[in-house]
Formats: sequence, structure tokens, C-alpha cells
Amino acid sequence: MNAQVPPAEDPLDRTRFPVDEWRLIETDYDESDLGTTETLFATANGYIGMRGNPEEGRPAYAHGTFVNGFHETWPIRHAEDAHGFARIGQTIVNVPDAKVLKIYVDDEPLLLPIADLDAYERTLDFKQGVLRRRVIWRTSAGKRVQINTTRLVSFTQRHLAIMSVTITMLSGDAPIVISSQVVNRQDGRDDYSVSTKTAEGSDPRKAEAVDRRILEPQSQWCGDGRLMMTYRCADSRMTLAVGADHTMITDNAYSEISSAEPDHAKHVYRIDAEQGVPIHLEKLVAYHTSRGAPVRELADRCQRTLDRARETGVEAIHDDQIAWLERFWDECDVEIPGQPAVQQAVRWNLFQLAQAAARAEGLGIAAKGVTGSGYSGHYFWDTEIYVLPFLTYTMPQAARCALRFRYTMLDDARKRASEMAALGALFPWRTINGEEASAYYAAGTAQYHIDADIAYALMKYVRATDDQDFLHHEGADILVETARFWADLGFWRSNGEDVFHIHSVTGPDEYTTVVNDNLFTNVMARDNLATAAQTVRELKEKQPEVYARMATRLDFDCDEVDEWERCAKAMFIPYDERIKVHPQDAHFLEREVWDLSKTPAAKRPLMLNYHPLVLYRFQVLKQADVVVAMFLQGDAFSLEEKRANFEYYDPITTGDSTLSAVVQSIVAAETGYPDLALRYFYAGLFVDLDDRHRNTADGVHVASTGGVWSALIYGFGGMRDHGGQISFNPRLPKSWSELKFRLRLQGSRLHVRLTADHLEFEVVSGSAVEVTVRGEQVTVEPGEPVSVVITRPKDEEEADMKRKLPPVGGRRADGSIITASVPRSRNG
Amino acid sequence: MNAQVPPAEDPLDRTRFPVDEWRLIETDYDESDLGTTETLFATANGYIGMRGNPEEGRPAYAHGTFVNGFHETWPIRHAEDAHGFARIGQTIVNVPDAKVLKIYVDDEPLLLPIADLDAYERTLDFKQGVLRRRVIWRTSAGKRVQINTTRLVSFTQRHLAIMSVTITMLSGDAPIVISSQVVNRQDGRDDYSVSTKTAEGSDPRKAEAVDRRILEPQSQWCGDGRLMMTYRCADSRMTLAVGADHTMITDNAYSEISSAEPDHAKHVYRIDAEQGVPIHLEKLVAYHTSRGAPVRELADRCQRTLDRARETGVEAIHDDQIAWLERFWDECDVEIPGQPAVQQAVRWNLFQLAQAAARAEGLGIAAKGVTGSGYSGHYFWDTEIYVLPFLTYTMPQAARCALRFRYTMLDDARKRASEMAALGALFPWRTINGEEASAYYAAGTAQYHIDADIAYALMKYVRATDDQDFLHHEGADILVETARFWADLGFWRSNGEDVFHIHSVTGPDEYTTVVNDNLFTNVMARDNLATAAQTVRELKEKQPEVYARMATRLDFDCDEVDEWERCAKAMFIPYDERIKVHPQDAHFLEREVWDLSKTPAAKRPLMLNYHPLVLYRFQVLKQADVVVAMFLQGDAFSLEEKRANFEYYDPITTGDSTLSAVVQSIVAAETGYPDLALRYFYAGLFVDLDDRHRNTADGVHVASTGGVWSALIYGFGGMRDHGGQISFNPRLPKSWSELKFRLRLQGSRLHVRLTADHLEFEVVSGSAVEVTVRGEQVTVEPGEPVSVVITRPKDEEEADMKRKLPPVGGRRADGSIITASVPRSRNG
Repeated sequence: MNAQVPPAEDPLDRTRFPVDEWRLIETDYDESDLGTTETLFATANGYIGMRGNPEEGRPAYAHGTFVNGFHETWPIRHAEDAHGFARIGQTIVNVPDAKVLKIYVDDEPLLLPIADLDAYERTLDFKQGVLRRRVIWRTSAGKRVQINTTRLVSFTQRHLAIMSVTITMLSGDAPIVISSQVVNRQDGRDDYSVSTKTAEGSDPRKAEAVDRRILEPQSQWCGDGRLMMTYRCADSRMTLAVGADHTMITDNAYSEISSAEPDHAKHVYRIDAEQGVPIHLEKLVAYHTSRGAPVRELADRCQRTLDRARETGVEAIHDDQIAWLERFWDECDVEIPGQPAVQQAVRWNLFQLAQAAARAEGLGIAAKGVTGSGYSGHYFWDTEIYVLPFLTYTMPQAARCALRFRYTMLDDARKRASEMAALGALFPWRTINGEEASAYYAAGTAQYHIDADIAYALMKYVRATDDQDFLHHEGADILVETARFWADLGFWRSNGEDVFHIHSVTGPDEYTTVVNDNLFTNVMARDNLATAAQTVRELKEKQPEVYARMATRLDFDCDEVDEWERCAKAMFIPYDERIKVHPQDAHFLEREVWDLSKTPAAKRPLMLNYHPLVLYRFQVLKQADVVVAMFLQGDAFSLEEKRANFEYYDPITTGDSTLSAVVQSIVAAETGYPDLALRYFYAGLFVDLDDRHRNTADGVHVASTGGVWSALIYGFGGMRDHGGQISFNPRLPKSWSELKFRLRLQGSRLHVRLTADHLEFEVVSGSAVEVTVRGEQVTVEPGEPVSVVITRPKDEEEADMKRKLPPVGGRRADGSIITASVPRSRNG
Repeated sequence: MNAQVPPAEDPLDRTRFPVDEWRLIETDYDESDLGTTETLFATANGYIGMRGNPEEGRPAYAHGTFVNGFHETWPIRHAEDAHGFARIGQTIVNVPDAKVLKIYVDDEPLLLPIADLDAYERTLDFKQGVLRRRVIWRTSAGKRVQINTTRLVSFTQRHLAIMSVTITMLSGDAPIVISSQVVNRQDGRDDYSVSTKTAEGSDPRKAEAVDRRILEPQSQWCGDGRLMMTYRCADSRMTLAVGADHTMITDNAYSEISSAEPDHAKHVYRIDAEQGVPIHLEKLVAYHTSRGAPVRELADRCQRTLDRARETGVEAIHDDQIAWLERFWDECDVEIPGQPAVQQAVRWNLFQLAQAAARAEGLGIAAKGVTGSGYSGHYFWDTEIYVLPFLTYTMPQAARCALRFRYTMLDDARKRASEMAALGALFPWRTINGEEASAYYAAGTAQYHIDADIAYALMKYVRATDDQDFLHHEGADILVETARFWADLGFWRSNGEDVFHIHSVTGPDEYTTVVNDNLFTNVMARDNLATAAQTVRELKEKQPEVYARMATRLDFDCDEVDEWERCAKAMFIPYDERIKVHPQDAHFLEREVWDLSKTPAAKRPLMLNYHPLVLYRFQVLKQADVVVAMFLQGDAFSLEEKRANFEYYDPITTGDSTLSAVVQSIVAAETGYPDLALRYFYAGLFVDLDDRHRNTADGVHVASTGGVWSALIYGFGGMRDHGGQISFNPRLPKSWSELKFRLRLQGSRLHVRLTADHLEFEVVSGSAVEVTVRGEQVTVEPGEPVSVVITRPKDEEEADMKRKLPPVGGRRADGSIITASVPRSRNG
């Protein structure tokens, strides 16, 4: 068995984090994993994101408030430069922090690590979309004070967050001060983006450090319980306004005073609190950002957001939030009855997808959403391959937004292709503003597959929604320009017959870079080329006017389509006849095999402990590569091929990337490794909740949360969607009794319920839905649930149970013997 | 014919640069190529280097005074970091400039670009080792003034430079001011190291920019005509003292005054000059540097250097310089009678070798010597492969110094191997202080061949000198640790028989990086392993005590030697049976072929116009790679193999590196392309004199100057030195009547004279020398010159004359057809 993946058990301390199917609950304050819990309890709506920092402002592993796409730029200085290297660095900015509500009782500040707490509970409520904290504090003077706070980032009002604090003296009276603040921390000592990067042994997954002042204060204003501050980024010139509004409700006597300085505004209440008389403060916060609008304009927008929220009222905003989430869960939930711990974790993951994508409108979905500065807030292929399946089948309007965002980058992508001496368009491997921001081309720009990933997700979206309007405009342009790129990047070699090769590329696995004919890239490019050709041909035939406009717009020549078809047809797909395995690239099997069983834990993840040149010369994977292709392009491979590939690659896959486990789970399920599938599912499910990669503190692994959905639906649900045909070959884990999920297909809403021996479908709205189950056509009419028997043959099931992965190095490449080994460092 | 190399013609404007066999002469002042002439007229001794800036201090393309090894460091910030990336940046520092002697007549400053010059001549004298300038200036007032200056960097007194200025009023009297200065320019606007790197499209061959103050002034002092200033580098903490001493000789009345500020000291003379009464000022300059000695100590050393020079006297120092050079030319000269223009250029190149290496003692020989800041003053394989042949056979004591310098880096190299998870020692690809400074590993650290290059040069030195003492101590340690590295880096694969492979390496050609089984690396590593094994075995047998000490010192196990021998024997040497060519690496022939004939001049050099990922996927070479192996490891390949390889690679070799032409010349000569050999020789000969790579302004291409010697001796002289056996197969260019050169072999001095039909040897000192000429043994006894007839068979010669290189893309890889093409950029 693969030693890389721990057994499938609930890993959480259930005393501290009790099971609740609709909430993440923390019952004990613990400073040791502060960074992790800040991420786990973050609140966000895809536009604004607030880490779960305490209202008091400290202690914090990383203060963090982020606005999607709000970034600073700088000229990248390469230690050794070359033509076409990325020029413009981009980093998401930690915006001024409006979360702060400092509390003083008898002038003693509440500070959780040293406070004498009679009660502590923090909950993130997936139904209400609220972060709540309830504390009973025994002050140094021995008085008991109840302090309840809430924090909500609105799904219905994109620019709005609301907070509250309710304080009740349980014993004794006391003067109480509440200092509500907006703090620009980005130049401070505790600023996240400055403090996390150390001089030596940096972790490339963290944010880029910018060692200078980023946010230049433009104006400050306070009055009538309202604070308003505006800023501009020094280099990107992006502008931001943040406003805060306060309402005090109490029968205690109090006074209030405001002040605003360039980096610090506050509204302070002094209250003479009597025992049992509650103090309730509501704080409304608005953020507006822009690529260039004047800050005065943004301040006006904040005023309007706050005015409207005040009119709407806090209660109504809470109600809207609940209603929004009710619909979300109705359309997106995945249920695993009888598995409350799993259910809780699944819902936390799905909730993160809402928090990352719900209101991203016009922006991308970053690797960490808006919950942290990890990966500098960049957008990667994570969006298209890991998040879009969920969005496409449950929130298609959000999928459209994400794809349309790529379309807005198309001109930049054309320029980038030209810089790379190629035709068509090359999307950046990582970016915020559309320009390539990957300073390390071997694991960046060389991942040309981003082009095919976008085309792939785009076609999945179009087929699932039949959104012809999108296809005819944005979609076709992307398909044509990416196909052009592939046709130009590759070249022809004749060996009797003409074969199309693509050299010097990097696939998803970043432990092997700049190779020839990476299997993943080639099969994805093949699909890109063929789909573009097919789309253009269909357009020409069925929509000659649309076609004619496109041909003019794209300076299009029909010969190109012939060329794409030839390239797709003649695409080289590496295959080793002797061991019946698809090599990850043309020469992968010639490499030395890394024996992971001999690599000590202290040397993991490998990328932080070995020079790239060491990793690159071994057969060792950061993440699934051929195995991802087996999933995404599953109709191009036989089950035997998939199994052989999974068996070959799984033992040499470290899973050092969080993108790996979820896909390994899906393919393990398909190829007859049910136990391994479940273990990989758990590995993905608890990536953040159990801080499996020791960097959850840098933000939620959004791709993994999307992958959890994919593992459930594609893995255990056994759904596939090749060429627009929805099929099911379900494989419910033995320990589960039931799996229920919802899909939106061409506008219809389909409920699916899987039990040990049945697969049930119900169309709850829309027209009939056609699917296949294990090859048999099933038509589900609205209002007429269908149940299909899906018991597997016993011998097949038994075979699965007995199946064991071969040992590392047990496989031979090209008939030759390579003994698995490890680099002989005397270093560690 | 290869279009990459221009015809063999004298490219210089002989009106401005008249031919003189012993001097480089410039007869016209021209500001348009200021940077180039500053380099061409630089004076240096391998320790101190002074660019040919005018005494007046301006105008300058790049002020430059350098002390070998005197460098600043800084933490390299990688745009995207990874384990084991180089950490410490290193850049040679432009030290305080003591060349300045400003002249004012009637308070009018002499400034060459605007001065009305009646006469101008600048000469670099290879026999006297002096830079001279003679100017007759007609001042604005119409007075004629003769100003003669000299500049000498002493070969005999390592820390000393001397300058003089002689001024004579030819018409009229005038007040004259001479302001002799020492200027720390490194923070100024015209500072070279700061001004040359632009934000965009940087040229990686230039020096790294350090955007802060480097030299911190420590003390300043002046008195008695002497200036003394000391500095410390901010980060590296290296220390420096510079002192200047002045002697005025004139019958005119004059006064003098000194001043010293932190960055500027001067000694100023005011002279009432009478017509015809000469003013003669002598300036002695001393530089001392240290890794850590206090500046006070260095100032004392400067005082002693200046005191001694004053006692010796300027005239005697000039005489010493002449005597030193007389011996240099006696031992190192190469004569080409009847070709004065070639002779001049050859002597300029050889003189540069003296200027780069003569007094480098304890330091390396940088890519630009001490004539510019190009390549940041780093030491590369240039030393071992391009400079050491010349030193080994003409100045063996300097060769020993250079090799011993590598030995002093051995501990750092051990640490670096460990960082790279390997045993043994890995020398840095580029360095000043012993640590890897290559920030781009693909064309840096991955050039592991540096280990084998050092071992190779070391054995050449030991065999040419029989320096057993060096072999037993420094040499053996280097051989053992490098062999260990190779044995660990590679791995075994069995395909019937066990084969040893080395993956993920970069060979000399930097247009293809991180490949498997680079032919050059593998044959050089094989030699390294075999030589180390042989050396250890011989030691054990012949010098058991030396062996025992070494075994203890290196924790040595005799099993290791068996392993090295097995590795060497089983080393994989890529060879394509179908087209009879050695692929540059295991998969080189699978790449697309770049058609250089279709690449416009504006796109050259390719590295400044194409992203590495574009270059890397084509068959296109920056510089000879397999062809270098054909030369260095010539005894391992047949003539047919060499010819097939030369014919395959030459048409796809851009020569974008100056290391290429000289080796192409040697192999063209050997494989029967005499015309091409001569053209490549000229291309190498005029690399700097004709600024062929448009960056001579950054300093002399020292490797190319060494390569000029190699092209003469190995190429036309046909010498080979495989395994210590000296052989000759000469090929005198048809247009030359004679070639004479000198060698030092095991202490004996051998003069060699080649004519169209004879090869003559004479031992002028030492014992008899054994060589072979075209396979026949020749013994040359002292005092008994030997003449060997070497006429070639007519048909062979005719075949050579008719031979033509095949067209690009005309060759087929593995039976397949690859059409040569170019990247289809719409960019340029």
C-alpha cells in the first residue's frame, strides 16, 4: 500500500472541535495553531475576505483582510535575467483592517491568551454565514463579563461586512471602553506580507515580500459615528476606500468620540456599564476598490453602501445572508447521512467555495480565495480544473464569471504568446492583472497547459449549460487563440508517419520540469485543438453570421482548422509498450526512481529540502500528472490503461501538492482501489481542517476544497461528463450508507442519491435529464424520480478489495532495471 | 559554408589603428567607441587592473579600477526561491580611482572631445608594458602644449602602479594646474556598477547592480605629497587601502597643496610654466586589499610599497617591467612572420593573458581579468579550459597558482555538494569567494562539468610539469572529491549490461539546459573518474605513505576506486548509429532544428531576443559543446567521428558565446576545413579588437585570448597532449609562411617552428623532449634542433579544400525528418 497517505480516520480533536453538521466549532482557545484557526474561521464572500483574527486585534499569526484582485505591483528583479522573463510582480495587499473592536473593562484590556475565561466558544455557521464568538471573562478585579461578537461578510451585498459586540456585566458594574478601529497595518511590524518571508530557505508558496510602503494614505475623515479612509497603492496605483459605521444600543450611559489619522481611525465608546444591562454595538464596514477610479469616488461608494446597509438594518442583512445560504445549500450541498464528522468537513469545504467564488464577479478565484496571502493572491489553473467543476454543475453563473474573467485577459495572453515567439494566446501561469507573474519559468510559464485547462473548463461549462451566447463570443475567441498557440508551439517529425510533438513544457507535476511531450499537456492540447476545430466548423455550418464576424475579428483562416485537426490527430502520446504505462513525458521512464519509503519525514515536502536539479532527475512526483489526465481525459484511455498508470505513478507520488490527493482519490476509486480512494478523500477533506500541509495558516487551499466536491461526485458518485454526456459508475465507500448530491444540467436541477445498491435521480425543476448509468441510458422526467440498481458483481468487488499497489521501483522501464534510491545527502 | 562566421580579413581601420607588431596604436581620438578602447588600452597585472580611461577622468564609458577578488556580497533575492539556490551574490568592486591627473592651462581644462588637438597618439606597448599617450593641444588662447602621459601597472611589484605626465609649453607661457586625484566613484552617477543595469531587458553578461553604498570610507590622510585612503565593503567586510605618492621634476616655479576627504583626495600643483621648460610629474600608486585585515594594516602596507618604489625609482621600475616582459615574450610568444597585422593582434591577446594572470597569486582569473566588471568579476571554467593551456605550457607557475586557488575552495565545494544532496565536492559554476554565485541554476549550477574541467586542467598541468608535490597534496584531494561527486550524481541502469547515466545536467552550450547524458559532461566525467582512480592506484603502489595520509585525510575507502572505474567504464556515451553523430545529449536529435539562415541579425544574439524556453526546444547552440569534447577528449574519438560531429553541429552553432570560435577553429583545422579554421581563428582573434560581440566595453574576453593561443598551438600547430604524450599534426594556413611558438615541457624549453613543409624543434634549455609528429616518435636533444618533413599527401589536401558543410536541417535525426524552422514571433 502507498505509504504516502495516512489511514482514513477522523483526525480532529473532537473535544476542542466537536462535530456539528452545520458549523465549525472551537470550544477552547489555543494559541499554538493560531494561524490555522485564523484561516479556518475566516469569513469571506469572494470579494472581501477577513481572517478569523480576534476582535481585540491580537494576538495574531497574520492579520488579514483582503479584497480580491486588490494588489500591488513592482518590477521583478531577477537574480539573473533573460528575455521574456516575467516583468511585473503582483501581490495581493493586506488592506486596512476594520475588524478591530478592542474591549477594556475597568481599563483592563481583554486579551485571550492571558484572560481568565469561564467560557469560550467560536463557531463558523455554514447556514447563517456568521462567525460567532462567546466569551465569559473573569477580569483581574474578579468581575464576570459576557462578551459575544459576530462577524459576517455579506453574500448579498458584495462590499459589505457587519460585526457586532454585545457586552454584559454578569457581576458588578464597570466602566467599559470599546475602541472600534480601522488600522492600516501593512507597514507595521505585524504586517503579514512583510514579516513572513525570511532571508534563508524561503517557502515559495508564501506571498512575495515587498519591502516598502505600499498603501499611500489619501484621505481620512470621521464624523457621526462613521470612519472613512482612502488609499492608493504606490506602484499599481489601485485605489481603495474603507468606511465603518457604528450604532450603539444600550441603556447604560455612554459617550463617544472619533478620530482619524492616515493609518489609524477609531470610534471609541466610554460606557458606564451596570450589571445585567447589555451593551450592543453594531459596526458596518464597506470596502470599495478600483484599478484607477479616484479615491473620492470610492469614498462616495462606501458612503452609499453604508447608508443603504443602515437603512436595510442589521437584522435584515442577517436574514438575507441566511436566505442566500439556504439557496446555496439547496443547490450545492452534498450529504453523507450517518457520517456527521465527514458531513461537517464536507460542508466546511463547500462553504469555502462559496466564500472564494460567490461574489468574485469580474475577478478570478485565487489559490487561497480571499483568506490569506499565500501564493501572493494569484490565480492559477486551480480555478479551471479544481473549482469550476463545482461551479459549473451547481452555480453556473459563477462559472461563467470566472471564465469571462479569463476572456478579459485574452489581449494580455496574446501579447505574452508573442513575447514567447508564438502565435495565438498564452495565458499566464499565475497572475492577478493578466500579466505573467511567475518568476520561475520552469514551474511557471512552461506550464503551457493552462491554455488547454481554460479551454477544457470552458467547454465543460458550455456543454453543461448550453450557453451558446458565451460560446459564440468569449468562448470561441479563447478556443481559437489557444488552438493557434498549440499548433505553433509543437512541431512535426516524420518517422514513416507524421507525428506532432510538443517540447520543453512542464506538466502539472512540478518535480519534473521542461520535458518533451508531457502526456498531460499533449492530451489536453489535443482536446483543445480538436474542440476548437469542431466548434469553428459547427459555427460555420450552423451560424454563418456569427462565424463571419468571428473570422473577421480573429483574422481567421479556415486552413487553420485543417491544421488543428491534423495536429490533434497526429499528437504524440507517449506509451511504453513493454510495461503498458503512459510515461509522464517522452523520457520519464529513463529516470532514476526515488524510493519515498526511505525518505525521512524531516525531508518532506521534498521541494523545501532538495534543489530542483535533484528532484528533476528522479521519477518522483509532487502531484498527480498522468493520473490527472486519466481523469480529465478519461474517455481517451481504457480502464486497464488507467489502472496501469495509477499503479505505476501512485507509489512515486508524494502528494506534496494539495492538488494531488483529491484526484488520486477519484482515479483510485475508478481503478479499483476503494480503500485508497477513501484515504485520499480524507487526505483532501482534511487538508486545511487538519493542517495537513502545515501551511493552512497562509490561507484556505481552495483547489482542494473544490477537489473534495469532485472526489465526492466524480470519485464516489462516479460521474463523468465527457463530450457533454453525463454518465455514472458509482462506487460508494463500504462504510457509507448514502451519498446525496445536486447537479444543475442545462438549467434543470437534478438530485442524485446513491446507496449501496441504488442510484436514484430526481429532476426537481426544469426539463428532463438524460444520463447513463454503467452504460445504460436513463431518462429522468421532472417529478418522476428514477431508481437504478447498481450492485456490482461480487468477484469484481472482491478483486478490488484484494488489489495492492506494487512496491516502488518494482516496475521496470523499457525492460531495464532501475533500482529505486534516494539522494545521498549528508546534509540532513 | 557556415554563414555564422565572417571571412578571414583584417577588420581594423588601419588609419586609426596602424599595424605594429609590438604595440596597439590609436592615432585618432574617437568618442564613439570609448568603452571598447578603454578595455583595449587597459593596463593590468592580474591583481590591479586599470581601464584605459583618460588621465583627465572624463569622458568615460566606464571608469574602472579593479583589484582581483575584491568584491562586495549581498543576499541574493530570488524572484521565486527554492532549496539550494545560490544565496550570496558577489560582485567585483570598482575601487577608488587613482588614475586621475587633471590638467589646466590658463585655467582651461584639457578635455579631449572638445580640445583642438594638433597631435594625438595612444599606444599600449607589449614590450615595455606601458600605456602612453602623446597629445599636442592648442588651447583656446591659441597656445600649443605638449602633454605626454604614461601608465604602468607593475608586473614585478604586484601592488604598484606608476603614472607620469610631462607637460611642455610649446608656444607661450602659462599658469598650469595639475590636479592628481584619488576618487571613490562607486556611489557617483558615473559609477559603472550602478549605471549599466537597466530595469528592462537586462543583459545577464553585465555586472550585477548593487543599489547602495558599497565602500565605506574608514580613514583619509594626506601629507608630504602622499595621499592615503582606506575603505571597507559594507557587506563582504573586505578592506582596501589605496595610496598615492607624487614627485615633481621641473625648472618652473610651482606650489603644491594636498587635501583628503572621505571619497576624494587630491594633490594639486600650480606651476608657472615657461615655454620650453618641461614639467614632469610622477605618481606612484599602491593598492592593498584583504578579506579582513584592519585598514590600518593595509595603509601601512601601502606606505611600504610606496616607500620602496620611491627608493627603487621610477626608471628602475620601468626597466624591471621591460625585463619581465622580455622574459614573458621569450617564453610565451607566438610568431607569425610575414603577417604583421595578425602578429599584432596575437600579441595583444597574449599580453592580455599576462595582464589577467601574471600576479593573480592566490586568486582566480576572472572572465574579464581585471579590465571590466562584466560577469561581475566571477571565475568560471574559462580559467581551466581556455586560459590554463597557455599557462601550463608557458608559465607553469601561474598555472599552479590558479589550480591551487581552486584547492582553497575545496571545503566550500564539499559543502555545496552536500547542499545538492551529493557526495564529494561540487565547485561553483561562478564565484569569487568560493560559494556558488550563479542565480540561474539551469545555466549555472547544472554545469556540473566544472568539476571535470578542473580535474582535467589539473592533470594536464601535472603531466606537463611533473609536479608530483602538487599532485600528492592539492591535486589528489580535488581528484578524489570530484570523482566521488560524479559517482554519486550518476546512476545505474541495466539494459542487458549495466550502463552509467548522468541526468539533469547542462553542458557548455547554454542554449540547451538540464538534459540527460550530455556528451561533453559524460566524457569529461569519465576522464575525471578514470584519472582519479588511476592516480589513487599509482599513489598506493608507488607512494604508500602519501597514500596512507590521503586515505586518512579524505576518509578514503579503496572500494570507491573500483566504483569509479566501473562508472568510467560503463559511462553512457550517446551515439546515433543512423546518422553517425554523437548527440549533444540523449535526446538532442529529437528536437526541432533552428534554421539560423532565416534568423535576422536584429534577433542576434539569440539569448537577448528569445525566452530560454524557446531556445531550449530547438537544435541550436550558443557555443560548441560536442565539438569541445572532440577537442579536449580527442583521443576518445576517431577522426571520422570528429568530422561527422563538426559537420553536424557547426551549421547550428551561433557562436553567441566568445568561447566558441576558437574551439571551432581547432576542430575545423583537425577535420579538414582549413578555410573555416582560419575564419574562426580570426573571429576569435578579433573578438575584442573588433568588438565582435558588442560588449568589449565590459572588459577583455580573457577566455578568448587564451583560446587564440590554443587555436594557434592546437589548431594550426596541431599539438595534442592526451595522457601526457605530446603529439603534433600541424596544419599551417595556406596564406601563412611560418608559425613559431614556445613550450615548456617538464621544465625543458622547446621552440617549435612550423613552415609549409617542415616542423622544427629545438630544446633551448633543460633535458631532451619526446614528442610524436603524425604518429612518429621524435626525440629532441638539447642543442640539437630537429626538423621533420610534414608535407601532406596532395589528395588529402585537395579533399580538404573541396569540403563543404552540409546545409542546416539537411541532416536527419533517427531516420526521421525534421524541417529546420524558426520561432514564428510576431514580435520583432
